[in-house]
Amino acid sequence: MDGPDAKGLIFLVTSVLYKNECNILSQDEYVSPDGQFFMRTEFVAPQELDPEKVLKDLRENILSTAINLRINPKKKKDIVVLCTKEHHCLSDLLIRYNFDELDANILAVVSNYNVLQPLVSKFGIPFHYVSHEHKTREQHEEAILRTLEIYQPEYVVLAKYMRILSPEFVANYANKIVNIHHSFLPAFIGANPYRQAYERGVKIIGATAHFVNNHLDEGPIIAQNIKDVDHKYTYLDMARDGKEVEKSVLTQALKLVFNDRVFIYGNRTVIL
Amino acid sequence: MDGPDAKGLIFLVTSVLYKNECNILSQDEYVSPDGQFFMRTEFVAPQELDPEKVLKDLRENILSTAINLRINPKKKKDIVVLCTKEHHCLSDLLIRYNFDELDANILAVVSNYNVLQPLVSKFGIPFHYVSHEHKTREQHEEAILRTLEIYQPEYVVLAKYMRILSPEFVANYANKIVNIHHSFLPAFIGANPYRQAYERGVKIIGATAHFVNNHLDEGPIIAQNIKDVDHKYTYLDMARDGKEVEKSVLTQALKLVFNDRVFIYGNRTVIL
Amino acid sequence: MDGPDAKGLIFLVTSVLYKNECNILSQDEYVSPDGQFFMRTEFVAPQELDPEKVLKDLRENILSTAINLRINPKKKKDIVVLCTKEHHCLSDLLIRYNFDELDANILAVVSNYNVLQPLVSKFGIPFHYVSHEHKTREQHEEAILRTLEIYQPEYVVLAKYMRILSPEFVANYANKIVNIHHSFLPAFIGANPYRQAYERGVKIIGATAHFVNNHLDEGPIIAQNIKDVDHKYTYLDMARDGKEVEKSVLTQALKLVFNDRVFIYGNRTVIL
Amino acid sequence: MDGPDAKGLIFLVTSVLYKNECNILSQDEYVSPDGQFFMRTEFVAPQELDPEKVLKDLRENILSTAINLRINPKKKKDIVVLCTKEHHCLSDLLIRYNFDELDANILAVVSNYNVLQPLVSKFGIPFHYVSHEHKTREQHEEAILRTLEIYQPEYVVLAKYMRILSPEFVANYANKIVNIHHSFLPAFIGANPYRQAYERGVKIIGATAHFVNNHLDEGPIIAQNIKDVDHKYTYLDMARDGKEVEKSVLTQALKLVFNDRVFIYGNRTVIL
Repeated sequence: MDGPDAKGLIFLVTSVLYKNECNILSQDEYVSPDGQFFMRTEFVAPQELDPEKVLKDLRENILSTAINLRINPKKKKDIVVLCTKEHHCLSDLLIRYNFDELDANILAVVSNYNVLQPLVSKFGIPFHYVSHEHKTREQHEEAILRTLEIYQPEYVVLAKYMRILSPEFVANYANKIVNIHHSFLPAFIGANPYRQAYERGVKIIGATAHFVNNHLDEGPIIAQNIKDVDHKYTYLDMARDGKEVEKSVLTQALKLVFNDRVFIYGNRTVIL
Repeated sequence: MDGPDAKGLIFLVTSVLYKNECNILSQDEYVSPDGQFFMRTEFVAPQELDPEKVLKDLRENILSTAINLRINPKKKKDIVVLCTKEHHCLSDLLIRYNFDELDANILAVVSNYNVLQPLVSKFGIPFHYVSHEHKTREQHEEAILRTLEIYQPEYVVLAKYMRILSPEFVANYANKIVNIHHSFLPAFIGANPYRQAYERGVKIIGATAHFVNNHLDEGPIIAQNIKDVDHKYTYLDMARDGKEVEKSVLTQALKLVFNDRVFIYGNRTVIL
Repeated sequence: MDGPDAKGLIFLVTSVLYKNECNILSQDEYVSPDGQFFMRTEFVAPQELDPEKVLKDLRENILSTAINLRINPKKKKDIVVLCTKEHHCLSDLLIRYNFDELDANILAVVSNYNVLQPLVSKFGIPFHYVSHEHKTREQHEEAILRTLEIYQPEYVVLAKYMRILSPEFVANYANKIVNIHHSFLPAFIGANPYRQAYERGVKIIGATAHFVNNHLDEGPIIAQNIKDVDHKYTYLDMARDGKEVEKSVLTQALKLVFNDRVFIYGNRTVIL
Repeated sequence: MDGPDAKGLIFLVTSVLYKNECNILSQDEYVSPDGQFFMRTEFVAPQELDPEKVLKDLRENILSTAINLRINPKKKKDIVVLCTKEHHCLSDLLIRYNFDELDANILAVVSNYNVLQPLVSKFGIPFHYVSHEHKTREQHEEAILRTLEIYQPEYVVLAKYMRILSPEFVANYANKIVNIHHSFLPAFIGANPYRQAYERGVKIIGATAHFVNNHLDEGPIIAQNIKDVDHKYTYLDMARDGKEVEKSVLTQALKLVFNDRVFIYGNRTVIL
């Protein structure tokens, strides 16, 4: 739940759960400096209990209509992965999925190149090659959207998908597209961040997983991580070692997202 | 509060606080795999409210007598620091205390050498030189205890105090003595951990802040941190760079302890 | 090269290379506190130059016969991977090998279980299932040795191979077996390190890649890394998150080994 | 030494040192992708040897006049520290200096406020209060320059000196001024970086030590480090925890600079 803070919110929620014989496993809450309340409660309900009944009880007790309430059953999310030519993030997702270690079902992989088809086919997952050649941006995005519609994914993961998505495309999956950017945002926004990092002579490189919104590389950040570099690194060395950071940050961010632990508030994330 | 888990504990606490018009700032709880419940609630009470009244209400609602309840007002802890010859942890505490950045009052510094007296005197804090020479261990500990009794500290901080304390001494300040050990415990228990680390050829060194109990270097761990090393490090280099880790780990642990965030459960700590 | 330190060694080597028109790309040396000299020089030789000629010139100039000299051409190492049931380290090696990002050729995978056969077969690499059932340790190791002999690997990688190897087995591949141990050695030697770590209440877990020698978990350490944990981690959580550390440490260590950057000196490694 | 790469440079240097009976302790070199050669050789010379003689010999052997050659005797650098109101970086320098752990002599502290005078006076170091009030920037910088001239420092350390220095001021100490900036440059250039970081919702904050050149926050980076943060951090929390990073990064950078390990090349540093 999230919404404007008010006295007694924790008490009200825990009392409704108590009366419904739900056992709280963990509960975290946060109040932002400007008074927004966020709470995530993980509970086990009696088998016969209808989640809608709990939601109704909560709604009746929490009178403020500005409070958003959601009950998410514990289940894997359905996702589609978009990629271009680099394999490292996709490989990581495929291996985890193969061994049932990803909290998601990969329904399909979509790419504007067919380079990674052999990899994807090893894991028995549909691969859609949607080339951008001889297409306008609108036409290409339209083609991708049609492919996504087949699968109705709950989340779209950009695993090094190297094309910029238009606001119109993003609007179809608002707050449902997770991207991995190969820099420590907001440093080195835009193209060729490792080359920019090399030119600036930084001693640390990084990667950022974030939700995609209308403004390129400016969506709410979910996770970031870094790696030390030194003067011996060319920008190609940075790109090579950066891949390790990219895939670990994406994995970390997706684990949070797929477990319903990420709240979006303005351009920030609250992770409970 | 901590004790055996039971249904509705969160609800009961929040309802008592709600009725007493206390505003919860943050609340964290944890249930151990073997069913021990821990909860720390930070709240603002109406000015006229007697904490004893809240404790009484909580006690009446939480019937299990196995549950420990404590209300700690937000205030600085009174401490005495024990040290030997190395200054780095003590310096860090003195500087923070001088600028009101330590959540504690340093009432006095006690040492078995007078090496650090000039440093301590710069900050206007009493320094007690209690030499161990020509004394049995019992006599020396007795002398230190008498010095501590003058100040009645809530916590005793061993800031690189290089002598082993007897179980009899420790019993006087059960769960109230915090030590910094210069290894990544439980590796390299005992004397000369950096030399042991060098001999073993490790690639990482560390430091551990822990409560002191009867068994040397085996008390509940509060915080640990590490630093990469390589073959070029002699054990003296490790000792030099290890000091940076030691002081940062001790600072981190004391911040948790002085803010009443550390629960001891068997030989483990729960930090809420 | 490595051996007892002597005046002018760097000068002698660089002068031989200079006369042979070799261009030094990088050079690193180290002298241990007890006077052992280590140097690794990376150079480009004229195409027609025979490495044996350079070795002979070096030998003639460096009179001390206690100095070991080696010239390794830049090429991928041939390896065989041993594993049991856990896939994470093996998966990582297979994916890197598949995309030509591993400085080695995986000739075969050998396992005492057939659990990972489906994974290995995706990548078209021979998988040998050598069960230990109904065999004595000697018989089982004999069977594995026979399998290894088919491939004549330069290195054997234990990618979570969960059986202890006898000194007799190890002697066949002295300083050629790399293991990944799931603890921050020397803490938690032996079985079930994550359970040991949980029991001790540590705040950091780790993994160690090391060469295997006669003493279990006591060979020269190549690389170590760690991950913060807290009281909420069960030992199963530690094991799960520890896998990420294990695979990254093994990858890091193998990169060093396969690029001939690791010198073994007693029970320590010098990495140049 | 540094300059355009040429064949045999290592050989020439080591041969000159060999002939002069100098014993090389360590030697590191680097060649940039665009062909600039950097080498740092640490050696012990016979007591009677004049460094000028070695320089002359080197100059005679290395014919290229584009190669810069320097011989720095191992000695502490003379420095002056500039600060404003925050104590943390200055405290750290003073404590290290007090215990002879800083590779520099702090000749004086200069500040545009008198807030830190009591601290500095504890350590018996001259404190110059040079207020900027009722002065133009030129007048203020002029006053500071006059103070610096008294001490003739080899390096000027900006330990959280919160005023921008003009290019004219900087020109007096080209490549001799080290600053600590409270962000992970180039992210959050300019004022209030922690507030900027908070607004952007980053999950990591950092600090950067760099040489000061004409362009604010854009000089060659010497060292950077970071700290994880989360949504619970206000920008004041970031500023508080960031101080720990700032002082450790500044300490790390100064150690490199004071030991003559930092080469400046364009807007980058090479650290040998």
